[in-house]
Amino acid sequence: MLRDEEDAFGHEMLDYLEKGEAVEIIERDDGFIDVSGGAKAYFAEYEEWPSHQKEAMAYVNGRVLDVGCGAGRVALYLQEKGLEVLGIDNSPLAIDVCKRRGLKKCRVLPVTRVSSRLGVFDTILMFGNNFGLFGSPRRARWLLRRFGNMTSLQGRIIAESNDVHKTEIPEHLVYHEFNRKRGRMPGQVRIRVRYRRHATPWFDYLMVSKEEMRGILADTGWRVSGFLDSEGSPYIAVIEKT
Amino acid sequence: MLRDEEDAFGHEMLDYLEKGEAVEIIERDDGFIDVSGGAKAYFAEYEEWPSHQKEAMAYVNGRVLDVGCGAGRVALYLQEKGLEVLGIDNSPLAIDVCKRRGLKKCRVLPVTRVSSRLGVFDTILMFGNNFGLFGSPRRARWLLRRFGNMTSLQGRIIAESNDVHKTEIPEHLVYHEFNRKRGRMPGQVRIRVRYRRHATPWFDYLMVSKEEMRGILADTGWRVSGFLDSEGSPYIAVIEKT
Repeated sequence: MLRDEEDAFGHEMLDYLEKGEAVEIIERDDGFIDVSGGAKAYFAEYEEWPSHQKEAMAYVNGRVLDVGCGAGRVALYLQEKGLEVLGIDNSPLAIDVCKRRGLKKCRVLPVTRVSSRLGVFDTILMFGNNFGLFGSPRRARWLLRRFGNMTSLQGRIIAESNDVHKTEIPEHLVYHEFNRKRGRMPGQVRIRVRYRRHATPWFDYLMVSKEEMRGILADTGWRVSGFLDSEGSPYIAVIEKT
Repeated sequence: MLRDEEDAFGHEMLDYLEKGEAVEIIERDDGFIDVSGGAKAYFAEYEEWPSHQKEAMAYVNGRVLDVGCGAGRVALYLQEKGLEVLGIDNSPLAIDVCKRRGLKKCRVLPVTRVSSRLGVFDTILMFGNNFGLFGSPRRARWLLRRFGNMTSLQGRIIAESNDVHKTEIPEHLVYHEFNRKRGRMPGQVRIRVRYRRHATPWFDYLMVSKEEMRGILADTGWRVSGFLDSEGSPYIAVIEKT
């Protein structure tokens, strides 16, 4: 369980809920630092979502697990549609925020701790770039197999990633090469979230091209049945059982 | 001279000049981190300045030294008014930006390296909180005496500071106490500027109340002749020879 001083993401969510503003800073292990889209995106209403995310809602059905549910924007939308949704996040304060916003089922749980004890799901959501929570190809394959045991026969994973190879930003290209040299995937970024005096532990976040995603899925019991593209480098994969 | 990877402030200025945006991140030595007002403020035209800064222009005359001139907003304004202005900044890229924007006289120089070799000035500007560049009370008093030898008899220092005691932000109050305990002034913050992969060395930046400023000026040959208040905690002191 994250200690309070490590719950940078949760403090950000809580401040945004209470004060309407919070700036998220992401620091990468090569010293690169920048603000993200910010807390606002985690509270966006359906109408404000990018269209590929809206389109993805058509593939959601049955009992839903929202992995890395943040402030609950997707889980709350689905709950309102009448679906049964369980939101999980490793941030205790983010889960508090979800509860305060009316999400009925949510709990503090990192993706590595999911198991069939949570019951059987028809849809597993990894939205807002949360394919990244797999962390590494190895851990992705290990968790994908576990997801197989937690899902119905028609079960789907709807996962968003970011094709980092589409960037032309020099600092990022240098970082991809740095990653290759140390035996990591180019888009396997090691980052931490910083918010005021809070900083999460360093963690790996995995961003992949469609090709790379297909490679990771091979022999895990899952395959991509379709992609939903955005106007930029983010995309959503609809993943089904082989 | 700052190395390129240390010139975070300058890279920020250059990117803002070329791309119209740049986010400045300030990290404090207690781990607190946040964005500042950003690069935009360093490029603000006179019309956009806060009114206490506009009012301060009435006290500027003769030959002017702009200490920490940044992107040159104040120096360029005065140059256009026909005054002779020398802008100095310790950031090589900021000085490049000043030159590209048309500032005739500017050079890379930290405040600690100013001397009478620069000639005699009638006004020394430390704008935009740049009283902070004094760093510590001790260094302030040493530099104030040096300023005495670089200025005409009617010479003035027009310096902006920030009364940190007016804050109610818990993290800042804790930091002030932390500073007191380690024998520093409450508002003597140790910070660095971070911008993408660039980070300045850690440096001390001194923010004081009016009382504290008067205490620092005592027996330096300088005294406050008047204050110009803002609506918040920043204020400008007009400082003259005793």
